[in-house]
Order: sequence, then structure tokens, then C-alpha cells
Amino acid sequence: MLLITCIFIFLITIPTAAIKRHYTWEVTYEYKSLDCYKKLAVAINGMTLGPTISAVQGDTIAVDVINNLLMENVAIHWHGIRQRGTPWSDGTDGVTQCAIMPGEKYTYTFEVDRVGTYMYHSHYGMQREGGLYGMINVSVPGVTEPFKYDADHGIILSDWYHHLAYDQSTALSSIPFQWIGEPQSLLINGKGNYNCSGLTPGICNSTNPQCSPSTLTNFWTCSIFFKNFITTHKHGSQRRLRIYVAIFNYLPNHFLQPPPTNPPIGPIWNDTNSQLNQSLTIKARKGFIITPPRKPDRIIVLPNAQNTINGYLRRSLNNVSHTLPTTPYLIALKQNMSDVFDPSPPPEDYNSTNFDIYTVANNTNAISSTSIYKLQFNSIVDIILQNANSMMRNVLGYGEGKFNLLRDVEKYNLVDPIMKNTVALHPYGWVTLRFQADNLGVWLFHCHIEAHFFLGMLVVFESNVEKVGDIPKINYGCGKNQSHGLAIVFINL
Amino acid sequence: MLLITCIFIFLITIPTAAIKRHYTWEVTYEYKSLDCYKKLAVAINGMTLGPTISAVQGDTIAVDVINNLLMENVAIHWHGIRQRGTPWSDGTDGVTQCAIMPGEKYTYTFEVDRVGTYMYHSHYGMQREGGLYGMINVSVPGVTEPFKYDADHGIILSDWYHHLAYDQSTALSSIPFQWIGEPQSLLINGKGNYNCSGLTPGICNSTNPQCSPSTLTNFWTCSIFFKNFITTHKHGSQRRLRIYVAIFNYLPNHFLQPPPTNPPIGPIWNDTNSQLNQSLTIKARKGFIITPPRKPDRIIVLPNAQNTINGYLRRSLNNVSHTLPTTPYLIALKQNMSDVFDPSPPPEDYNSTNFDIYTVANNTNAISSTSIYKLQFNSIVDIILQNANSMMRNVLGYGEGKFNLLRDVEKYNLVDPIMKNTVALHPYGWVTLRFQADNLGVWLFHCHIEAHFFLGMLVVFESNVEKVGDIPKINYGCGKNQSHGLAIVFINL
Repeated sequence: MLLITCIFIFLITIPTAAIKRHYTWEVTYEYKSLDCYKKLAVAINGMTLGPTISAVQGDTIAVDVINNLLMENVAIHWHGIRQRGTPWSDGTDGVTQCAIMPGEKYTYTFEVDRVGTYMYHSHYGMQREGGLYGMINVSVPGVTEPFKYDADHGIILSDWYHHLAYDQSTALSSIPFQWIGEPQSLLINGKGNYNCSGLTPGICNSTNPQCSPSTLTNFWTCSIFFKNFITTHKHGSQRRLRIYVAIFNYLPNHFLQPPPTNPPIGPIWNDTNSQLNQSLTIKARKGFIITPPRKPDRIIVLPNAQNTINGYLRRSLNNVSHTLPTTPYLIALKQNMSDVFDPSPPPEDYNSTNFDIYTVANNTNAISSTSIYKLQFNSIVDIILQNANSMMRNVLGYGEGKFNLLRDVEKYNLVDPIMKNTVALHPYGWVTLRFQADNLGVWLFHCHIEAHFFLGMLVVFESNVEKVGDIPKINYGCGKNQSHGLAIVFINL
Repeated sequence: MLLITCIFIFLITIPTAAIKRHYTWEVTYEYKSLDCYKKLAVAINGMTLGPTISAVQGDTIAVDVINNLLMENVAIHWHGIRQRGTPWSDGTDGVTQCAIMPGEKYTYTFEVDRVGTYMYHSHYGMQREGGLYGMINVSVPGVTEPFKYDADHGIILSDWYHHLAYDQSTALSSIPFQWIGEPQSLLINGKGNYNCSGLTPGICNSTNPQCSPSTLTNFWTCSIFFKNFITTHKHGSQRRLRIYVAIFNYLPNHFLQPPPTNPPIGPIWNDTNSQLNQSLTIKARKGFIITPPRKPDRIIVLPNAQNTINGYLRRSLNNVSHTLPTTPYLIALKQNMSDVFDPSPPPEDYNSTNFDIYTVANNTNAISSTSIYKLQFNSIVDIILQNANSMMRNVLGYGEGKFNLLRDVEKYNLVDPIMKNTVALHPYGWVTLRFQADNLGVWLFHCHIEAHFFLGMLVVFESNVEKVGDIPKINYGCGKNQSHGLAIVFINL
């Protein structure tokens, strides 16, 4: 499983009083050479990576998103933001809203109620891959940091394909499926460096200033550390190391001066122990511990697998490959529509006896379904993932091998687990997440690898939608409301 | 001006009684090698070119269009079909309907009330360029043809770009605009032959059976003639001839046997006189003449030009570069919405004194507008185009040079002009069209070169929308109805 996008959080500065922050974002396609290779990218106000939202805990964010793409819709998800009281602003197409059509404007309004470093990204089709993503920094006012610092830098990493999302989705939807290969680059703060040798300068030009390494310049001394990111590139039968660099520069050095030494070599890409140890080492900081509930009311076990359904490649959780309906769940549930999705509950567990996590799944019994998990309001839910990815909740434990409830529950960290909005699930490993279902709405929970999501590796949680407030009208403009649209015409005749 | 798409009409056969014909079309992206070069194409039920609709005059056609594109909307226009009584089925995004979102189904229902060979094609963004087009043949029952024939072949020609429509639209929308070059191929019945030399076989393979020349096989003798199409390819500073071929094969020859001689060379690409003479030669067939009204009630003169507006490249008619609103005109007019489009009328004529048709227009005074021409019901309208393209109406005259009403009106053919749905406007030439505004609805009239349409070379005609019947609800699902959508929520609360 590839690490597609991750954010390093450093320090939060410049707290001010909570206010409403208003942004106007125009989404377009533009030619970019982010890794020196010229290709179409989705841009916000001309920028790929998009503009950073810097806010203070308690602020209200209002973003007018104007879709100026020619034929493509848009929806933007505010990853990690809880959307308490505004589930319609979660930006997940098919779950909370109808996508924004070309020429249309949609305003996302929500409160950033918890400190943290988050990201926003498209949650429509595979549009995130086109470059529609950026950072959200939420600082906390009135906190004294234990050490002095001069600067605060966010770093966001992302895979970058030279193919368009249309290529990848078409290839994955073919029989037999086609694999378009690994991403050509990894971008650090929207910049990478592809080897242009052999390509015409009009397509790829290593001297293009757009693709110089990201440089973070600090004015004095700096307590920020930088961990270089290492990944691999499969070339013929060999896996070769590729090193992606960003440069931390300390004044008075000139920011274009290259570093005097090579970056250190980190652990090899498939060093699972190193990854697992890193996950286990990270604990919540004292003073910021949110103690998890002692025990769950419900345990949902979600093993993942790659399957085929009717010859099409799919990915599933508990043998269910999810299909999103055209009418968003939030609207369907609020309107009590009975025929938008399968009302039967998806499976809670699996027959672990015959499940071998070490062999490639060859299960053709997977089904395609729109069914959802209805969670009792305020109940405590444990999600045990056997190879997958997730959202903001306590990460109680990680482990190697096949999860065994009696044995592995002893390994849970119930003292100082961290809160996460995305969690890495290590090869052949498991992870347990615990959360309280105290947020009214419908919530998508899915693998954050764009291709896996596309192939159905997702589930949907619902909690007390009937208590959700008035949903903005624009969220209704698709699916059954569009095709029936009864009321509009009655009013206007 | 390039000839982008044209249809040769031959003969109409197999008349049967008028019935309702029902089709289900699933629209997807697929990899195709139509001219040997592998690229993403829009397909209908897996086919690019789409399936042919063969019907009899008076038939009702119902097409369920299911949009299974990942992120892209769809609208299909039935080019040349008059849509009498069903203006909402005309399939023009922004004019008669909201585009069909991914996952949605829309049913087009209309009568084919006149014999002819037509085409259907996407009328959404620049999607037609992706390959979403096909043929409609409407035969007439009970007509005795003056000669015997054994087969009836339709031929449809289309430009084919190796770039995607997203590339072209992004390039055209850049400052300064970028020209992605001429189309790489011309397709004859969806097949072409690109020179693959120097390209990897995975991308381009001249032996791919998908891109063998179209072969039309006839069982006996055949009265069909074939005119080979010649176009040019600019290579460096030279214009070179490229010949595109389809093969007419007569049994018992094997259909894979190449023709024994080379195709004849037609007129050179810029031989305007030859083109003009061809246009002037074509008259309505005796017995099928629809005599045009003697004189118009209104004359609208539309000279075209290439302009810039705020640095963006645009094309205009009468210095107005049209912008389509997000709420379709048909819906806005039916609902008496006052703020969807500019209510002031666009200009009827231009100051011809200072208009030099032989020099490149450098007019930066063009304006972007949503204004429309309101035509009095049943009035006779003349449209005089000075370099442009159009829809089903009498073609009274063609001429060279700058149109002069007093002089050129004498050249009009008021005896046996043909009815056309698309007309070629020759270099530095003019054409006059006459029609009666007897069709309730809102109608798009535009240059059929996709890039020119994209850049605003269009006008909109309206006639008595208030008398249009009940518009299907799905046509309302965008623009102001989506963002306000008042009634839906009132009903459901």
C-alpha cells in the first residue's frame, strides 16, 4: 500500500481571535510543470498546490468555490475537519452533496473547532490526483510553547501522475484492468523533479523554475527538523531508490545555494518494522491527551481485499465493494427516500478462519452494494482494519499479522493514543480505531489511495441524520431530486 | 475555416411504418486506436463512432442516455432534428437543458418528422471532439426512387485530435492563447490512419485492426459514388497533402484487398472557387422543393471575427462573443427569471463601412454577452453570414467577397434552394439563410467548429417560449434552480 498523501505537522503560531474567514476560489485546468513535465493540472486561483488556509481554533471558514472547469464537476472535502453541525459542508460527492457543476458556485461554511494541520482536497471522482488539494492550519490561541521558534512551515506530500485521472479510471475500469504504473513523481509542497532526459524541452524541461525544489527559508536558528522522503521507482526488473528533496535553508545562505551534503538515507521502502515502530512511538503530547473511552459498544472488523465483480477489478471491505448512489446519502436519509440505497446492513465481521492475509485474495464472491453502517448516537465504535486507511479518531493500536481480538486487545494503548484523521495500515498489519458516534450526519470512511477508493474500498457511517439542521438547497440538485424535481415545477407553474 | 464534420447523404431505404424506437446508451471513456494512435475516447455502448439510428419519417425516438463518465457531464444534440413540440430534447447544454451528471440517466424523446441524413453529437463543452457522435438516417415510406440500388451507406467524417478536449480548451483559455495545432487525423466512419513511425507500438500501431480503412461492401453493382477527401497537414513551413481513404468494395472481391489504383486527386484545399461552385451547383431535387418565402420580415447580418476580451482569445458575431448562462435559456424564459441573461437585444447589423473582410480583425471592442435574439412567431428571418456556419433552413445564396444587400440579393435562388442543417461559409464569402420562426423554443445557432463555438461564436434565437408545453423536470436541475431550489425543501420539510 502506497503512502499517497501525508502532512507533517510542526508548530502552530500567530494565534489571533476567532473570526470568519472568507475565501473565493476559482477552479480551472491549467498547464503546469510541477515536476518539470508539462501536464494539465487542476488549479485554485491559478495555483497547484492550492492556497493554504491559516485559521485559529473557533474560526468560521467560508469558501466560495466557483467551478470554471469546462465539463467536469467539483466537490472539495475538508479532510479532518469534523463539520459539527454542518455535515452538508463535508464535500464528499454522493455522500453529503451534489457535485458543483461547471459555471456554478458553492459556498462551504464550517467551523475549525480543533487545533491541527489538515488538508483539503477534491472528493469527486479521481480529481484529487489532478492536483486539487492544499493545506489547512488551525492554530490554538493562548498556548505557551515549551521552546522558542521563529518560523512555522507546513509540508504536504503528494503522488504525481503524468497521466490524467481519466486515464487511470479508464484503465482500472477495463476488462482486464490495466495498470498505468506508479506515479512518476512525488511532490513536496507541489514541487518535484522528474528526469527529463530524452524528452523534448517543450514537454519536460529540468531548468523550468516551476519545478525547482521547495525551499523553506528560516531567518534565524530553527528547531524544525526535516525527514527526507524516500521512495522507489520500478525500472525494468529493478527497484531503484529515488530521493525527493526539499531544501531547508538558513539565512544568510542564499536560497538557491544547494545543500553542501547529500541527504541522509532513511529506511528502505519495504522496511515494515521501521514503519510500525514509528507508528507505535508516536503518542499524544502531555496536556493534549484525549483519553479514549474504556471499551466499545460495537466492534466492526473490516478486512480488505482485491476482488473482481463481473470481470471488473474491485476492492472490498468485508467482501463488499461500495458503490456511491447518485442521490447523496445525507439528502436521501433526510428526505426518507427508500430506494436510493440498499437498506440491509453491511457485514460487521468476517469468517477469519479461511482468511489468509499473506496470500493474494482471489475471492470472486465480493458484491457491489450501497449499504451503510447506522451507528447509534453517542455509542463507542471500534473499527479494526486488516489492511486499510481512515479518519479522525483515537488510534489505539497497531500490530503485525492477523488481528486476534483476545490476544491483540492487550496491546491497545488506552493511555495516550493520538488522534488522527488518516492512519497508515502497514503491510500484513492491523490497526484499531476507536471513536464516539457523536457527530450528526453521514460520513465517508475509506482508503485514501485514490485508486482503491475508486474501486470501492469505502464504507459509510450514519448517525442521527434526522436531527441534522436545514441542508442548503444546492446539496439537493442531483439524483432523484434532479430527475423528479417535483416541487420546483409546482411552484413555478 | 476547417470543415470539421460533415455527412454525405446517399439514399434512403427500408421504409416501414412509423413506430417508437427505444435505445439505451451508456456513455463511457474507453481507450481507442481509431487512427492507430491509442487515446481516450468517449464511447456509446463501447462504440466510437456511436451506433447509427435508422428510422422512418414520423417515428418517435426515445434514447435513454446513461452517463457513466467518471467526472464529466453529458448532453447530446440531435443535429438537424427540428424538435417540434419537444424543444427540451434538443440537447444543448445551457440552452435547453442541464447537462446529465455522472451516474444520471436522461431520456431524449422526439419525433423525426423529416426525411434526411442527420448526425447526433455531444453538445457539452468540447466533448464532441472526444468522439461522442454518430449518424441518424430518416427514410421516407412509399417513395419510388428513380433508379435501382442495392445498398445504402452513410459516411460521416470527423477531425480527430490526439490531445483531449481538456487540452484544447485549456490552451485556448490561456493568456496568450496556445494553439494545439491541426487535428492529427480525419476519421471516415470512425476510422483513420495515422503514421505511427517513430512511436512505440503500445501507443501507435499501424497494424491494429481497429484502424484499418473503412470498407463498404456492396453485394452487386452499386450506384454510390465516392469522393475522396483531401486535406492538408502543415509540417514545418510546408503544407503537404494528406489523403484519407475509405474503400468501396464490390463483391466478389475480398474486402481486405487494396484498391488496384490510387484514388483520384480532388481540388486543392484552398481552391475556393471549386468549393463555391459546388455549393452553387447543389439544388433541391424536383418533387422535394420547399419553396422559400418571397421576402423576409427581418434581416440579421452576422459578420464573424476573432477578438480578444481582457487578454483572452474570443470569437464574435457582430462584435458579441456569447457566453452561455448556467441556467438554461429555455428554463429561464419559461420561469420568467429576469436575472439569468442580459435582456437587451444583440445587434442586428454592423457598420460595414469600416469592416475589411480581407484583413485579420484586430478589434478589441468585442463584448461578452448572454443576450439573445427574440423572433416574432411565424416571422420570416434572413440571416446573412459573413464567414460562419448554421442550422436547417433554406440556403438562398452564396457569394464571394463582402455581402452587399442591393447587389447580392439578386443572386438569391428563390426557386429551388436546398434545405440544410449545416452550411459551409467559404473563405471571404457570405451566405444567406431564410427560415420561418415557426418552432416554439430556444435554439442555438453557431459555428460548428468546436473551438470557435467554445470561444463564443454563437447566437441564440427564441420564439414564443411561453407557449412551450411542460418541460421535463430533469431539465431544471442546474443553475438558479439548483442553487435556490426552494420548492424541493418546502415539500419535504
